[in-house]
Amino acid sequence: MPTMRAMVVHEAKGRLAAVERDLPEPGAGEIRLRVEACGVCHSDAMTVEGLWPGIRYPRVPGHEAIGVVDALGAGVQGFAVGDRAGVGWFGGACGYCRRCRRDSAFACETVHEVTGITRDGGYATHMVALASAVAHVPDDLDSVESAPLLCAGVTTFNALRHSGAGPGDLVAVLGVGGLGHLGIQFAARQGFRAVAVNRGRDKEALARELGASDYIDSAAQDPAEALTGMGGAKAILATVTSGPAMQAIAGGLGPNGVMMVIGVVGPLTVDAVGLIGKSAAIRGWYSGVARDSEDTLLFSRMNKVASMNEVYPLARAQEAYERMMSGEARFRVVLRMD
Amino acid sequence: MPTMRAMVVHEAKGRLAAVERDLPEPGAGEIRLRVEACGVCHSDAMTVEGLWPGIRYPRVPGHEAIGVVDALGAGVQGFAVGDRAGVGWFGGACGYCRRCRRDSAFACETVHEVTGITRDGGYATHMVALASAVAHVPDDLDSVESAPLLCAGVTTFNALRHSGAGPGDLVAVLGVGGLGHLGIQFAARQGFRAVAVNRGRDKEALARELGASDYIDSAAQDPAEALTGMGGAKAILATVTSGPAMQAIAGGLGPNGVMMVIGVVGPLTVDAVGLIGKSAAIRGWYSGVARDSEDTLLFSRMNKVASMNEVYPLARAQEAYERMMSGEARFRVVLRMD
Amino acid sequence: MPTMRAMVVHEAKGRLAAVERDLPEPGAGEIRLRVEACGVCHSDAMTVEGLWPGIRYPRVPGHEAIGVVDALGAGVQGFAVGDRAGVGWFGGACGYCRRCRRDSAFACETVHEVTGITRDGGYATHMVALASAVAHVPDDLDSVESAPLLCAGVTTFNALRHSGAGPGDLVAVLGVGGLGHLGIQFAARQGFRAVAVNRGRDKEALARELGASDYIDSAAQDPAEALTGMGGAKAILATVTSGPAMQAIAGGLGPNGVMMVIGVVGPLTVDAVGLIGKSAAIRGWYSGVARDSEDTLLFSRMNKVASMNEVYPLARAQEAYERMMSGEARFRVVLRMD
Amino acid sequence: MPTMRAMVVHEAKGRLAAVERDLPEPGAGEIRLRVEACGVCHSDAMTVEGLWPGIRYPRVPGHEAIGVVDALGAGVQGFAVGDRAGVGWFGGACGYCRRCRRDSAFACETVHEVTGITRDGGYATHMVALASAVAHVPDDLDSVESAPLLCAGVTTFNALRHSGAGPGDLVAVLGVGGLGHLGIQFAARQGFRAVAVNRGRDKEALARELGASDYIDSAAQDPAEALTGMGGAKAILATVTSGPAMQAIAGGLGPNGVMMVIGVVGPLTVDAVGLIGKSAAIRGWYSGVARDSEDTLLFSRMNKVASMNEVYPLARAQEAYERMMSGEARFRVVLRMD
Repeated sequence: MPTMRAMVVHEAKGRLAAVERDLPEPGAGEIRLRVEACGVCHSDAMTVEGLWPGIRYPRVPGHEAIGVVDALGAGVQGFAVGDRAGVGWFGGACGYCRRCRRDSAFACETVHEVTGITRDGGYATHMVALASAVAHVPDDLDSVESAPLLCAGVTTFNALRHSGAGPGDLVAVLGVGGLGHLGIQFAARQGFRAVAVNRGRDKEALARELGASDYIDSAAQDPAEALTGMGGAKAILATVTSGPAMQAIAGGLGPNGVMMVIGVVGPLTVDAVGLIGKSAAIRGWYSGVARDSEDTLLFSRMNKVASMNEVYPLARAQEAYERMMSGEARFRVVLRMD
Repeated sequence: MPTMRAMVVHEAKGRLAAVERDLPEPGAGEIRLRVEACGVCHSDAMTVEGLWPGIRYPRVPGHEAIGVVDALGAGVQGFAVGDRAGVGWFGGACGYCRRCRRDSAFACETVHEVTGITRDGGYATHMVALASAVAHVPDDLDSVESAPLLCAGVTTFNALRHSGAGPGDLVAVLGVGGLGHLGIQFAARQGFRAVAVNRGRDKEALARELGASDYIDSAAQDPAEALTGMGGAKAILATVTSGPAMQAIAGGLGPNGVMMVIGVVGPLTVDAVGLIGKSAAIRGWYSGVARDSEDTLLFSRMNKVASMNEVYPLARAQEAYERMMSGEARFRVVLRMD
Repeated sequence: MPTMRAMVVHEAKGRLAAVERDLPEPGAGEIRLRVEACGVCHSDAMTVEGLWPGIRYPRVPGHEAIGVVDALGAGVQGFAVGDRAGVGWFGGACGYCRRCRRDSAFACETVHEVTGITRDGGYATHMVALASAVAHVPDDLDSVESAPLLCAGVTTFNALRHSGAGPGDLVAVLGVGGLGHLGIQFAARQGFRAVAVNRGRDKEALARELGASDYIDSAAQDPAEALTGMGGAKAILATVTSGPAMQAIAGGLGPNGVMMVIGVVGPLTVDAVGLIGKSAAIRGWYSGVARDSEDTLLFSRMNKVASMNEVYPLARAQEAYERMMSGEARFRVVLRMD
Repeated sequence: MPTMRAMVVHEAKGRLAAVERDLPEPGAGEIRLRVEACGVCHSDAMTVEGLWPGIRYPRVPGHEAIGVVDALGAGVQGFAVGDRAGVGWFGGACGYCRRCRRDSAFACETVHEVTGITRDGGYATHMVALASAVAHVPDDLDSVESAPLLCAGVTTFNALRHSGAGPGDLVAVLGVGGLGHLGIQFAARQGFRAVAVNRGRDKEALARELGASDYIDSAAQDPAEALTGMGGAKAILATVTSGPAMQAIAGGLGPNGVMMVIGVVGPLTVDAVGLIGKSAAIRGWYSGVARDSEDTLLFSRMNKVASMNEVYPLARAQEAYERMMSGEARFRVVLRMD
């Protein structure tokens, strides 16, 4: 019987252990992927550390998986064996409920799947996903290079295109890391005036190379004041996980501006009077569904948006995970399945 | 020399004192109004209590003024003596700066006027306003009945029409008071499914009469759970001034929902993870500029939206102000100038 | 074996003939409805007259069908036997293609079904539809009264809510007939200033009862001039099937206005220079998909929007069809299946 | 007394004749510019050929004027002598009427000025414009290079950003000429997938250099079919002046697509059924107001969008005009005032 290899977590606050399993058959409406690469995302800590309420073990993490369609379950339309395909955080939707029918499939009333958390993910040679969660991937995209686009990419691309900013508008990207280095590229290539914001000057040169026309060192300058001096931001893409950092920059929103919060953070305290005076908003942003991943990949290919990655073989997933958690990686960590 | 009467505040934490003054001449770009009625708004406490940073005295409060154009300063276009006209919170704008030219006149870079705070307002028989702040008022609207539409009305009408909700969408109005009783009417007449939310059952019958199709007693039910059970709100209009009340209902937003905060409140703590999971937002909303007042008045006339008012003569402004501050008025307090 | 009755067309330019058939079993992804009522729409001429390219016979017309779920095919989610349900023009979509995933299921790349044209429709006691085409219907809506909402209703409701008009904006409804008498109701209840436009004064009183605040007799007045005199329309809902009538009113659009064309008409000649000067548009509008039908029904129930119908039993479908084609019906014709 | 030089048209179907005049004083609300460069646009034929209804002579054409503020009339705010400034087709607005207050200053109810048509334009060393029509110009933009951005640039930039297309969407630019060569650059830099459409292959290489990722030779391929094969256009920017060319490509719109018509053309016949089936639109687009010019210039500077120009001294305006009218210029013609 054919088998697959995976790195699995057996309990909360666990470690990634190699296992060999029988190759699973896709059920009705499911697709089996042969995974070629999978990104290692900070949210994988939900699985490894057991932070997701009710998570059950053993579980294979990974929600930036890219590869090839390997087998189709009953009733799947729109995909053929051999098609390139990928899966992100979004684990699928029913397609029939009130929310699915109203462009909110990410909040489906029936299906509550999250890749690598409620079902096994991409730290593996193979995985099974709901067809509704699977994105088409252009043939000429390299799997290792593109894997992070399926979460870090789609989240930043999608948040920016829904921010309300238009061409030439001032858009600040808070944090130049795994999310931010992609956010800067997307912001510049969507035609925004991209302002990178980070502590210190270390990443200024890189930020400018990636497309930032301005840089704010938030250790040296009050970022809210600096943005206000530039006219106020139409959008701030908050990629950090620090509430105080978000609060410190919110005052830099201009009239009708919006801070798109994608970095997971606990309770956030906002200055309501300040928001009222500017008709400004704080908006959370869910990553995206399959079509958003498809749009991200096509846009990235067309505009040469690239993730900067450190690559590890699957067997070294534990090391890769720790590297990602250290905050030192430049900038995303990717597992290669060969 | 012709004179005017006004009720004036002489110092922070002061009282309203009657004065008689020479009738002021409007300067270039200004309009003098003969005021017929002026609403008494909770924000008048900024003037009476001295809460506005840098406010200078003596000062005439009042930013819900309605009357007739009495005299025109040099260069004013679009108004003639005898035209009916009104002024709200918005005190005017230059029309030429970056923000004025980009639909953000409320945040003009040059002019920072607030009616009744930075210049004298409508607790008076006459007042002078910048023409850019003056709204045209239809001839057949009663001044006393309509005065509150110039702040309470425009704020709720305008927040609702910019909330992103569409016809049939679930829209909750938090608080059934001076703002909320107008918000319910506007929500229903804009075609939303209006849900009134208030503590207790006292105001349920009224809320339904005003157009609410549903009512949530937030003392008896968790309002966030109640809204979620109805599918989640596309918009919540937060008219209260209690941060905890806002926080308690924010979880009732549905996917892509937005809470429009118009009740002035201090720091507001939001559940960022919850917002991310729903791509939901907390948005502050500035009242509106002159054209928004015009739109509000026309819409109210066409759809028979009416403010419920307690009316006092100008000379009893102190009593009227205290009544409004008591929170017991049903629902707005208006000064009549005769 | 259980059977069903239907009125069927056997050839182009044919007549409706009664047939009795075995009850069909729904296939995978299909739902069988027991039809309670079905509207008779002008577009049924596509089937009866053979105007639809490539149409095959025999064919049962009817795309305003409402009834109860009678049987479920394999894999159908979100519906149970006994649920109330309805089907409109939209015949279903795959849910997986590029267009389905991008809010354009009406233009699905794979499924090209039109109810009553490419598959049998609702002039019958039973019919089978793709689950993706089926709308949930609230329990308390009367089938006969509501049937026309599934095409005439959804088309007008949906065009209006996507027209870009906001509360209080001037919206003209061209034609007070089967579509227009619903359009006026929807326009008024969405908060627009509804202007009815029709030849003669016959229908003025009715139009005003339905919610029009203004009426233009296009036989007595140039409708473009009349609208321009009112400030110009933000939207015109063109429900007629006369190109010249559309052309005659297009000049009444105001700045950024749009004419939503829902009445099927041949080539339409527009004044491009006029459109440029106003940044105005001519937009076609497809009816709507299942979720649009659901929204229409809910909105109609909440706001008491009602179709005015002439009702016939199924066996008199030929007479009903002719009545509808005569243009004399007030305003929709509906078949009742009992 | 100081004088100015201008090229003036004395009658319909006239020629451009050099004149010397006294330097005019700007009136209240007006600005005098010292013109450094002025583009020669196809719409100048309105003046030279007398096509504008009611045009009066003598008249100085030119609505792509750029230079320096030379003198201020009474009451002008927001500009100082020495500021760089420019004027396009938009000749100003009152700022107070219903339309000015509703983001439609281009259709002001009071002021109906068109630069170079109803008042003297930029084929001159100096000109006087309403302050409301004047755009701020960044100091580091070259006047000769940038002049065409004030009409050809703003029209294409502005039409594209209001087309509803989002990042990655397919946007076709019909015509690779004076407007189109800018349209391609703006489309690519706003993040669209830009498809250039022109007769023949001559301009393919250039179109790709300017940012087009695809090219359709409309002499060799049906452009509607070609676009449909690529999935259908979300927007088509129609820069040509041929109605048949527009009609031939309209069928290439995808679902919810829009053709933005900016090339002036007579009556345009559209396939209404085709538009209905796709919920697609034909929209005219007015150029833009002063703030749109400002946005265009800032965006162009940031993204290195450049007009390709043939430059003539003012005295050779007749020759420049004829060159532009020949359709042979690559791609815009500009007068230099030195």
